[in-house]
This record gives sequence, structure tokens and C-alpha cells, in this order.
Amino acid sequence: MSSAVTRFDYRQLLQWADESLQQAGASGEIARHVAFYLLEGDLLGYSTHGLIRLLNNCQWLQQGKSLGKGQPTVVSERAAVAHWDANHLPGPYVVPQAIEAATAMAKQAGTGTIVIRRSQHIAALAAYLSLATEQGMVVSLMCSTPGQRAVAPFGSKQAIFSPNPFALGVPSSGQPLLLDISFSMTAAGKVRQAKANDVALPYQALITEQGEWTDDPASFFAEPPSAIAPLGGQKLGYKGYGLTLFSEILTMALSQYGRRQGGNDGDANSVWVQVIDPSAFGPQKAFLQQVDDMLEDCRQATPIDANEPVRIPGQRALQRKAQQLKQGVAYSAATMKVLQRCEELVGVTLPTALSDGA
Amino acid sequence: MSSAVTRFDYRQLLQWADESLQQAGASGEIARHVAFYLLEGDLLGYSTHGLIRLLNNCQWLQQGKSLGKGQPTVVSERAAVAHWDANHLPGPYVVPQAIEAATAMAKQAGTGTIVIRRSQHIAALAAYLSLATEQGMVVSLMCSTPGQRAVAPFGSKQAIFSPNPFALGVPSSGQPLLLDISFSMTAAGKVRQAKANDVALPYQALITEQGEWTDDPASFFAEPPSAIAPLGGQKLGYKGYGLTLFSEILTMALSQYGRRQGGNDGDANSVWVQVIDPSAFGPQKAFLQQVDDMLEDCRQATPIDANEPVRIPGQRALQRKAQQLKQGVAYSAATMKVLQRCEELVGVTLPTALSDGA
Repeated sequence: MSSAVTRFDYRQLLQWADESLQQAGASGEIARHVAFYLLEGDLLGYSTHGLIRLLNNCQWLQQGKSLGKGQPTVVSERAAVAHWDANHLPGPYVVPQAIEAATAMAKQAGTGTIVIRRSQHIAALAAYLSLATEQGMVVSLMCSTPGQRAVAPFGSKQAIFSPNPFALGVPSSGQPLLLDISFSMTAAGKVRQAKANDVALPYQALITEQGEWTDDPASFFAEPPSAIAPLGGQKLGYKGYGLTLFSEILTMALSQYGRRQGGNDGDANSVWVQVIDPSAFGPQKAFLQQVDDMLEDCRQATPIDANEPVRIPGQRALQRKAQQLKQGVAYSAATMKVLQRCEELVGVTLPTALSDGA
Repeated sequence: MSSAVTRFDYRQLLQWADESLQQAGASGEIARHVAFYLLEGDLLGYSTHGLIRLLNNCQWLQQGKSLGKGQPTVVSERAAVAHWDANHLPGPYVVPQAIEAATAMAKQAGTGTIVIRRSQHIAALAAYLSLATEQGMVVSLMCSTPGQRAVAPFGSKQAIFSPNPFALGVPSSGQPLLLDISFSMTAAGKVRQAKANDVALPYQALITEQGEWTDDPASFFAEPPSAIAPLGGQKLGYKGYGLTLFSEILTMALSQYGRRQGGNDGDANSVWVQVIDPSAFGPQKAFLQQVDDMLEDCRQATPIDANEPVRIPGQRALQRKAQQLKQGVAYSAATMKVLQRCEELVGVTLPTALSDGA
């Protein structure tokens, strides 16, 4: 499908997204954040959580489902934690603030933790990690979606949970480790993408109403729909089930905003942000050396396929980012259709595609 | 194999383990803790990390690889974190202290985090969780083993990591959620157990030197040995690889005690303990209601097999504990051999098996 790729200059695209969001009702500050972090998702290769979500963000702003101005309010706090209500402000505006506040706490207390209720969709967690790693901090992020049921508990065929992502950022002497995974066998966005591209999933990640395992993305949109299996699948799915509960408890239960409160909140998220200051435990330099040693052991580990050396989480994402900043940000034909719908919705013209777009 | 099960009265067994540890050189206080938490592992069904490890604990005490008296020292601390050096004191003595100290921090700051270097083997993480949940706290535990390389990074056939467990304890209005899983496809103890029982693993969790996937536990003891694959296996192993790095960074890198420092430390662990006080984020009662709702959704989810309703993590473990406290603690013939070797080593006679032992 690379023949169908359209490329845009990063700066022009950022400008377009920013203007589109302002046109839809966002303040300049909020538009700047949402445009930047959605596009950061694309740069890093998280194409299901990049500008493809700009249309939704503009719609939510127009419909009042996302706030175009305002600030999160503090529900409660202690020295190393806070609970914020984002009042449906866009996630890409709230999460960077939370990382900043958690970093300040971590510098004082060793860790800083913020849970957030009612954040509008926060998109790609990976996009936020470098905010912390650039300050020498370790950061973990999780979110869940009170309005979504797509993942079954282990042993069930009924969707109960959202497909919850977990992200980790760790500084090293070189590039940071950037991890962003879901605790389910796949994410809803990947099933949507497979359906749009009319291809099977790369493995049987879905369980049908009949209790059968399938790789058919269409089953997820059937009535009744199939459910996504937790990480670990048929034999080890109790692990992904446990990790999903971990994420739902630290996001929804701690922020006291679960499916009984936010069942009609669409894509809005409950969020966990934790920043750890390694220098609270010992010299920062010694911590970085530990990480360097660990990552070096991984790089040196004998690969199964001699042509595929072991990669560090985030390594390919950072390569993609550097490449796309240079050659332009690439979009598939399916994503282009969504960008064009956004163009029509808010009336801001897309920049001209780069001529060497193929 | 249930025909080969031998049962002992819990109190008598506890007394035996306690006396054995004292005989091997532990103070009364340390012996009491190690006996209690090893046996707690058996009660909950973690038979690879129960009294089967008493022999090792006694050997380590006799050889000076585990300290029979003393206290962990504080390397550094801030309001919500501390770094302890356990000086090779037994894990079951140090971890409860860490949970207690982290709980006190959490009551003040919202969370409390303690990382520990040079804890002697901490056995079953699940055994410690109720210390926090009984006080209404959420607790997560992780540990890694600087002296062990058994798990390969994703895409590799070479063992780099230890098989690192992750445990989570969450209070509810009823029984707590108690999760204890490894981030690899299996744990080394389970491979040892399969080898001892001469059975295949229930799935292909191992990668041979030739890069082939196998369920043969003997391959793990061959030269060169096979490596355990990270959770997620052939397709999704990048998730288990990332989670393994998460655990190694929060245990070994934060405590600045990794494989280059502790490569010859045998089974000693680097440990992460984090306690979260839910009442820092809102009313405790509302938190418990959130957890209750979530667990109820799981129990009510339609099972794939109508005879196998969805279980809450820890549910079966707590049933096993109640049953074994009543009917006696059960040991396989293979474990009995190890208990008898311990009896010979320290000269404390095992209690009489219960007559209804079959």
C-alpha cells in the first residue's frame, strides 16, 4: 500500500491542524497542544491515534463534548498525588500539564502521581513520554475508557473492558526507551484499520458470540460483536486480564469515574500519570548507567533471525519520526479520506501534498 | 497425582519451618517471618515458591548467603520514596517491613515507594499483598534477579532477563483482588516442576539455541539451554519484552543494583514496592464501590464455557488457603523429597502427616 501514501510537510500540517481546531472552537493554547500531540502520534508511527482523530476532535469541540477553553480542576491532593477533573478538556491539553505537575512533585517527594477523570480522548500515550524523559524522569501512563466495552475478561466472550494502553518512558544516555502497548491482544483502532483495509488481523485476537477465536475484523462490527481477548490469549489470557484490571483500577477506580458514571462519555478517558525521579534513589548518572547496560544487553542478544537484531522499545518509532520530519508525514488513502472530511467540516484547506509523495 | 499428596496441619508445619530456620541460624523474628510467608505461598497455591524453598533458605543461612539477624539500611529517601539495602536479609523479613513503611508514606503523601537492593529471595509475591489490602491500600510488587538470565528479549533466543513477577493487591468490600503473574510465558520454577514431573509445558514457552519454539522443559537444562519467551510469544512478545524491561528498570535500575553488580548473587532479588492510598484521591467508600462494580461486571460476564464462570484474580488462591487451613497443607511427592532433605540438613523432625492425607 506504500504506493497510495500521501506526504505533507510537518510544519504545514501542524499549522493546518492548529487552525482547524481553532476554527472548531479551541483556544490558541488548546489548539496548539492538540495539533502537536496528534501529529506526534503520526510521527512516531501510531497512525491509528494521530491526525486521523482530528475530525473527532473538531466534532467534539463543535458539539460541546470537548471544552475549547478552561482548566482542569483539582478534586483532591496530597504531597505526591493529585486527582484532577478535566471537565472534558482535550487529553492532549491536560496530559502534558499532568506530567509537568507530577514531575514537580517527583522532584520533591521522589514520585508524583496524578489521576484524571473526564479527560477527552488522549490519543497516543507514546507522544507524551519525552516530556518526562527529557528531564531525566521515568514516566508511566495508563488510560481507560468508561464509555467503551471491547475486551473480555479471561474465560469470557463478553466485552467488559476497554482496550487499555500502558506506556513507559525511561531516559538513557542515548535515546530514551519509549514503550506503548495495550493489555489486550489488539486495540480497537487496529481492528478498525484492518476492517478499513479489508485484511485479516495477524492472529486470532477476537472471540465471537459462539465462543470461537477469529482473526476476522468484521466480526467486531457484527451484532452481537466479537470481543477482543486479553494479552496472553487462550492459554495465558489471565495475565492480560489481570493487567487490564490493574489499569482499570488505577485509572477509573482511583479517579472514582467508571462505567457507571461515564458510560455515555464516548471516547473520554480516565487517566493515570506517574513520574519517578531516579535521583531520589541514588545518583542520576548511576541510574543512566544501569539503563544503558540493560539496553546494551538487549541489543547484543543473539537474534532468532540474524537479519533482525533485537530492537529497543521506541527505537523504530524514533527512526520513523526523524524520517518523517525530513521526508514528510505519510498518510494512507484511508486516512486521507478522514483528513478531507475534516477539511470539509471546518473549512480550513489542507496544505499541498509533497510532490515526492509516492 | 493427587494420590501422592501428603498433608500437614498448618500450625505444626509453621512451627517446624520456624524451628528449622532458627536451627540454621535465623533470629526468632526472622525465622517467624520466613516460615510464615513461605507457608503462605503454599496456602495460596504458589507451590513453586512455598516451603519447597525452605531448604535453600536454611542453606543460605548456614553459608552466610542470607543474614540471620540485622536490619536493612537506608541508602536514600524522600517524602514518598526510599531506597533500602537489605544486605541479603531474607526477603520474607524485609518485604513486610517495606510494605509497612510504604503504607505509612502513602497515608501522608498519597503513595509510598520503596526499592530494595540485595534482598535474599522473596518467594511468592502474592503472600505479602494482604498486608496492604487489609489496611485499605492498593499495593504493587515487582522483583528481578540480578544473578539470573532465563528470559530472552523479543526476537532473540538468548536469555538476558530473569522471569520477573508482578503482583497487585486491591481491597474491595469483599475479598481482595490478589494478582501474581510473571511477564514471561512461564516462570523458571514451573519449568523445573515440569522437568521434575517429567511432563511437557502446557504451551511452547521456550526458544532453543536453534531458534525453535518448544514445550520441552528438558531443553531449559540442556547446554546451551533454551530461553523462556516473554509474555505474548511469537507474535506479541514485544509486549512481554517491554513489561520485562519495565520491571527490570523499576527494580534493578532504580536500586542501582543490576547484573553487573549482582551477577553472582544467586537467587537474591532487587525489589519494587509501591503502596497507594485510595483515600488520597477521594472517599475510600467510593473507591471500594468502584472496585466492587468492576469485579461484579467480571463475575457476570458470559463465560465461553458455561461451566467455568469468570474468576477474580486471587479467588481460587483464597479458596485454596481456606481449604488447606482446614484440611491440611498439601505437598506433592517431589516437594516432600525436598522437605525431607531440609529435615536432614537442620535436624528438626517434620511433623506427622495427617492421617487423611490421600
